[in-house]
Amino acid sequence: MSAPIRLPSGVRDFLPRAAARRRSLAERVTGVFEAWGYARIITPVFECADVLERGLGHGARAAAIRFVEPGTGEVVALRPDITPQVARLAATRLADQEGPIRLCYEGALYRLSGRLADELGQREILQAGIELIEAPAPSGDAEVLAVAAAALAASQLPETRLDVGHVAPVRCVLGAARDDDHRDALAAALARKDRARLRACARQLPAEIQPLAEVLGSLWGPAAETLARARALPWPSEVEAALAELTAVLAAFAELAELPSATSVTIDLGDVRGFDYYTGVRFAGYASGAPDAVLRGGRYDELIGRYGRPARATGFAIDLEALVDAQRASGVAAAPLSRGIAVHGAGAAALARTLRSRGTRAVTCATAPSASWLRGAGLDAAVSTETGEVLHRDGASEVLRVEILASALETMEIHPCPS
Amino acid sequence: MSAPIRLPSGVRDFLPRAAARRRSLAERVTGVFEAWGYARIITPVFECADVLERGLGHGARAAAIRFVEPGTGEVVALRPDITPQVARLAATRLADQEGPIRLCYEGALYRLSGRLADELGQREILQAGIELIEAPAPSGDAEVLAVAAAALAASQLPETRLDVGHVAPVRCVLGAARDDDHRDALAAALARKDRARLRACARQLPAEIQPLAEVLGSLWGPAAETLARARALPWPSEVEAALAELTAVLAAFAELAELPSATSVTIDLGDVRGFDYYTGVRFAGYASGAPDAVLRGGRYDELIGRYGRPARATGFAIDLEALVDAQRASGVAAAPLSRGIAVHGAGAAALARTLRSRGTRAVTCATAPSASWLRGAGLDAAVSTETGEVLHRDGASEVLRVEILASALETMEIHPCPS
Repeated sequence: MSAPIRLPSGVRDFLPRAAARRRSLAERVTGVFEAWGYARIITPVFECADVLERGLGHGARAAAIRFVEPGTGEVVALRPDITPQVARLAATRLADQEGPIRLCYEGALYRLSGRLADELGQREILQAGIELIEAPAPSGDAEVLAVAAAALAASQLPETRLDVGHVAPVRCVLGAARDDDHRDALAAALARKDRARLRACARQLPAEIQPLAEVLGSLWGPAAETLARARALPWPSEVEAALAELTAVLAAFAELAELPSATSVTIDLGDVRGFDYYTGVRFAGYASGAPDAVLRGGRYDELIGRYGRPARATGFAIDLEALVDAQRASGVAAAPLSRGIAVHGAGAAALARTLRSRGTRAVTCATAPSASWLRGAGLDAAVSTETGEVLHRDGASEVLRVEILASALETMEIHPCPS
Repeated sequence: MSAPIRLPSGVRDFLPRAAARRRSLAERVTGVFEAWGYARIITPVFECADVLERGLGHGARAAAIRFVEPGTGEVVALRPDITPQVARLAATRLADQEGPIRLCYEGALYRLSGRLADELGQREILQAGIELIEAPAPSGDAEVLAVAAAALAASQLPETRLDVGHVAPVRCVLGAARDDDHRDALAAALARKDRARLRACARQLPAEIQPLAEVLGSLWGPAAETLARARALPWPSEVEAALAELTAVLAAFAELAELPSATSVTIDLGDVRGFDYYTGVRFAGYASGAPDAVLRGGRYDELIGRYGRPARATGFAIDLEALVDAQRASGVAAAPLSRGIAVHGAGAAALARTLRSRGTRAVTCATAPSASWLRGAGLDAAVSTETGEVLHRDGASEVLRVEILASALETMEIHPCPS
């Protein structure tokens, strides 16, 4: 007896409707990237594990699916992140290209662990993202934020938000921890914005850091007001400089972004996720209908240097499947397919050719199909070339004049596919 | 000392120009599929090895890259072929959908061996293809051939050809071999169209098969003439029926196809490749500038049944990278990118927004960029919002009136990117 037909844990098939939604969103988002001058590249799904790992943070390294490539005996890994591949290209094949370099990508990556893998058992993650290499500051960070806002707006979700921060305040507080356990406890309290727990942990910090740690859990909210609150505190000079930088980035963003934007901007200085990976401004994108961030990004000035080209850089990646789920949850309609017609009867092939040449999908059938077949095939109507009878996918029918069939089919009212 | 930065054997990166060519061809080809009513699906890059292998021929099974998925301990394989995944879907999630079912796909697959892996060391193969499930005969085969012809024509190559055959004659001759060695020798002689070798091997065949085997190596050429020659021979009845079927398929094709087509049709009844996989009509597509077939397809009536839905089916897959290489070798120009402008000076962000809203790619720069930077970034020109000075990517410059900048930039003559 053979084993059951099943898929490996965490990967899935996309049937036509889901595939169309995924592709349509990917095209909208990459269309935004390209409009802002980001050039699309394609990198392989697996790489030599040691090369990929140079560019991975601790979490992504643990999440990589490694295996021995049987042809060469080399240890390879399915990419758990595309940014290190872009960094590798920028430092090698694009080594002679003057910056700033603007690149974008769209594709699948694979993770054994992390939020999506742990909570949802998802191994395959669909991402689209950009990297701005040799990005000037503050205008580079501001531009990347503006592209993120435009990409989120392209999802047509009723409400999207960018939550912007900087790693410096969190790094200052966690860097003062007594030991690793204390650091982890502080990070956990910050992540949960648990003020009681944060206050308890803060007591073991040096006296000058203690009040900063306590307030860090509440340094989130509207941009101008939160930044003003944060900048009034007695931070060490490097955090003060970071907050001034963040203020400048937001001012430059306001000029660059397409405002009024569907995407609002708030501040969260206590976000601890990715603080060991990013080196400056960091941000997360949220969308109505999505339980967690659908976009993450920030400045990472140390990554590309690991591949031999020291370069400042800023980028972000969008989780396309999470955004599609949010679209579904929020009732955003899928982009309609072009009109599709099944044609039968004498001369059906010629009519189908005419329809195709005018942008209508067309299928020839040996006999008149049923409405249920039309729905399964994703077509809108079937038409007889001999009688002019039109059967719509909902079962309704009408009769057109045979001699005007092709042009009538282009203009007639056909109910769009629900999805 | 860390290991050198390298890619695994047989995979590659696509820099912006190569990526744009690959995407543009993939979009053209899948656009043809969709125009003919084929609905696009997306399947995962790896699957449970035993599930995938149900649907693989001997060669593809040996070519699969298997590994243990560390999260579950399951043996999975990178797909060496997408057709078994489509078959699995047709038999499971689409089990209730009435046929004929038209599906198409585009994506990467991975092979350790086979022509591309053995001769070129290529592990990653980019394919786009269609499957027509519960295809009526002969019209289903004819439709798939017509889509193949249209897809090849969409490549804009000066010369493309479909070489059509049927597995029955080869199967009849090879089935009469004395033993496996004899069979392999016959197949090798047929593959090379080596008539002397074929004559020598044929001597050991039964007397009634011997003359058929000898002539099989020369049963190729123009469609009508070659079919007439073949049908005049004393074949066993099942081969006679197959040749009648092939004649009917070609007649139906002539009605369905978009003729006059850029793709010509010839016959090759001695093609042995894939004869253990296909069950009826089979065909290969050739293009000027490509050393080997860029498209392979045919009828496979036994595959979908292995997943639990006995169904006749016909399909084909195109090797997109081979077709891109053929385009390059034949001097087919890459699809031009939309116009791209770098803007600098006061109000640059606003001008960039206006350009983007009108379909021009736009980047803002802190200072005037150089022509070499423009070329690296894939942009056409840089413009100063303050002086109206335009620097073209080739180094030429001119001055536009500042107040008409946005509309002037849309209409001005800008030299397209060479590629």
